[in-house]
Amino acid sequence: MALIVHKYGGTSMGSTERIRNVAKRVAKWVRAGHQLVVVPSAMSGETNRLLGLAKELFPGTPSDAVCRELDMLASTGEQVSVGLLSIALQAEGVPAVSFTGWQVPVRTDSAYTKARIESIADERVRGELAAGKVVVITGFQGIDDKGHITTLGRGGSDTSAVAVAAALKADECLIYTDVDGVYTTDPRVVPEARRLRSVSFEEMLEMASMGSKVLQIRSVEFAGKYHVPLRVLSSFTPWDIPIEEEARSGTLITFEEDEKMEQAIVSGIAFNRDEAKISILGVPDRPGIAFQILGAVADANIEVDVIIQNVSHEGKTDFSFTVHRNDYARTMEVLKTQVLPNLGTDRVEGDTRICKVSIVGIGMRSHGGIASKMFRALAEDGINIQMISTSEIKTSVVIDEKYMELAVRALHRAFELDQPPAPAQ
Amino acid sequence: MALIVHKYGGTSMGSTERIRNVAKRVAKWVRAGHQLVVVPSAMSGETNRLLGLAKELFPGTPSDAVCRELDMLASTGEQVSVGLLSIALQAEGVPAVSFTGWQVPVRTDSAYTKARIESIADERVRGELAAGKVVVITGFQGIDDKGHITTLGRGGSDTSAVAVAAALKADECLIYTDVDGVYTTDPRVVPEARRLRSVSFEEMLEMASMGSKVLQIRSVEFAGKYHVPLRVLSSFTPWDIPIEEEARSGTLITFEEDEKMEQAIVSGIAFNRDEAKISILGVPDRPGIAFQILGAVADANIEVDVIIQNVSHEGKTDFSFTVHRNDYARTMEVLKTQVLPNLGTDRVEGDTRICKVSIVGIGMRSHGGIASKMFRALAEDGINIQMISTSEIKTSVVIDEKYMELAVRALHRAFELDQPPAPAQ
Repeated sequence: MALIVHKYGGTSMGSTERIRNVAKRVAKWVRAGHQLVVVPSAMSGETNRLLGLAKELFPGTPSDAVCRELDMLASTGEQVSVGLLSIALQAEGVPAVSFTGWQVPVRTDSAYTKARIESIADERVRGELAAGKVVVITGFQGIDDKGHITTLGRGGSDTSAVAVAAALKADECLIYTDVDGVYTTDPRVVPEARRLRSVSFEEMLEMASMGSKVLQIRSVEFAGKYHVPLRVLSSFTPWDIPIEEEARSGTLITFEEDEKMEQAIVSGIAFNRDEAKISILGVPDRPGIAFQILGAVADANIEVDVIIQNVSHEGKTDFSFTVHRNDYARTMEVLKTQVLPNLGTDRVEGDTRICKVSIVGIGMRSHGGIASKMFRALAEDGINIQMISTSEIKTSVVIDEKYMELAVRALHRAFELDQPPAPAQ
Repeated sequence: MALIVHKYGGTSMGSTERIRNVAKRVAKWVRAGHQLVVVPSAMSGETNRLLGLAKELFPGTPSDAVCRELDMLASTGEQVSVGLLSIALQAEGVPAVSFTGWQVPVRTDSAYTKARIESIADERVRGELAAGKVVVITGFQGIDDKGHITTLGRGGSDTSAVAVAAALKADECLIYTDVDGVYTTDPRVVPEARRLRSVSFEEMLEMASMGSKVLQIRSVEFAGKYHVPLRVLSSFTPWDIPIEEEARSGTLITFEEDEKMEQAIVSGIAFNRDEAKISILGVPDRPGIAFQILGAVADANIEVDVIIQNVSHEGKTDFSFTVHRNDYARTMEVLKTQVLPNLGTDRVEGDTRICKVSIVGIGMRSHGGIASKMFRALAEDGINIQMISTSEIKTSVVIDEKYMELAVRALHRAFELDQPPAPAQ
């Protein structure tokens, strides 16, 4: 008997017919002798519908007091889901009980609409499990120390599921989603993309942050911190496939360094065209310049991704960074009004028509020549590189967005990602 | 400065446009210097939508564990409303904060889907009022002593509003609804029906229980018990009518016996065609018979309204009662299988095509001849009376349902309810 956490996305909960299928799948696991905790998302479209109503009533930027009410509002989507799933389970003859975030309780800070989980009590949940029930817990939400409802931000149900699994020391956390695992890259761009049977936590983190929308990045961080074995698998397989087959499907996210993993040097190609690039030219090369520029940007609550500053010539340097495209205009405004006047330059350039393409692989740590292989593959297809940024297990380039698909396919081929990796040594 | 509770029904909350109008109306009261607590219902149709989804998943009779989940589900409708109204108030520049039943907390028993309020804490609400905020509280729900969400049953938001007003010792509780007050009878049946400027608590109780759907009967009981001044008024008047005019509109439900009330003997005509009549004939007239018959009916959770047993002839009597039409078939089944075999009779008759018409008036206590005036009016129109039942302030008759409108109009005319009453003496 194992303690298993299942998480189902909004699509899986999108109708009573689908909820019934989720209940049948959970019932299959229960009948195989496991203890089950299930974390469902809101029915697809529901959170957007609720926040849309709020936006009609308050079109401006919400204050903290309004954000508190947005959480009061949005948290109902998951509450509806746990009630319905718990009812569907009982219709299947499986004893079940649902809990909201405040009932567990899931304690968070008070950052409404983007709260962070601080702790999860396990007593009440364990009591119901011991009584033979499936426990259905709302994702996406918690309660702060003043007793207000909070939400974790979009996609927060993944994080809730992983956090619950960590608190209960569950044997595995299964994330049922609308893709059947983590791929070497997006199969819509590269039809030869291959599903990975396993991927390391660090690689998953890089891929999630690069826009592979399989898992919310905070859930991967959480899983890494608490070593929660995490599996991404499809919610579209028939609910009655043999449980042994289901338990091995999808992609396992591993934390054991010494575990026999697939030995590919590069595991996947991530890409992202949500960013815009900004360069300030002729910046005086003196201490404090980077802070002077990015401090003002951070104060405006704009997140910066890639940052590049090269060596200087004649006391001047160029300073470049990328931000989300939605923040581009606002960033330019901040620079022109608050930064450039004190900087001794007015030369700022920007481009929203860029994309970022990255190769990700834990094997890169111990293999040289990977980056140059990447650059050669891009050069052979005539793709100009505008910015380069590297980390231990990732090399990213910023290029013209019109070359994105071409670059992803070239890299997928160059690193032979369509071939199964050599067996572990 | 007064402390006022407003309650808005689902129709008033039916769209963002209407919610905005509620916010403007509440803002008007705040700007006039009052402290406001607002209890909104779920957006119209929402509770039915949610319970419809549950019914698809669990078509049978819900167990207690399923009822618990129905409350988890249905309580979200009001939670959405308080979030949206609180946001709309802030958009109007009025500081506001929303609370769910468990946040207040509103303590109830554990009778899921039909819980009863046991106590309401006032500390948290008073704190927010003192901080200058409008407090928006979910109707229809509470929390039991094990921390489970409960709901009060359909229409429970009226009861919530009155209970909150009682707990806070509010100066008045205004129930905004889709009618503009309590009438002498239903204006759809009698066009000359007149709005009552005030009605006594006891009369209101009789009218509510008779099917005048203006207020949920439990809310009237609650108001009576705690002497909460209650006013029913229209939510369809423009939000910006002068507050003095609004504060005098609708119908005031009064508790002060010595208050100068309208001195009508009969205040209104109530009617109801939701009932069915059942008679058991030739019942042996011995102690315990009534219990033997109605005990079995009560055990089947069937509510009985009118009960008549007349004097016996030759040791035999006839026993008649009415039940809700929806319970008619089930009641007959219970009688035939569990009651008649032990009763020495198999003569049972029933009729679903009946209606009950009542005259209600606190003045009846001290005036004779009212009932005979009622019977004469009915006789003059050729209406046969099948059953008669009386209380201190009400006389009810059961008649063929096809005469219902005719009877109501005849009684309305006979008691001159289309005329304003004489001034108080």
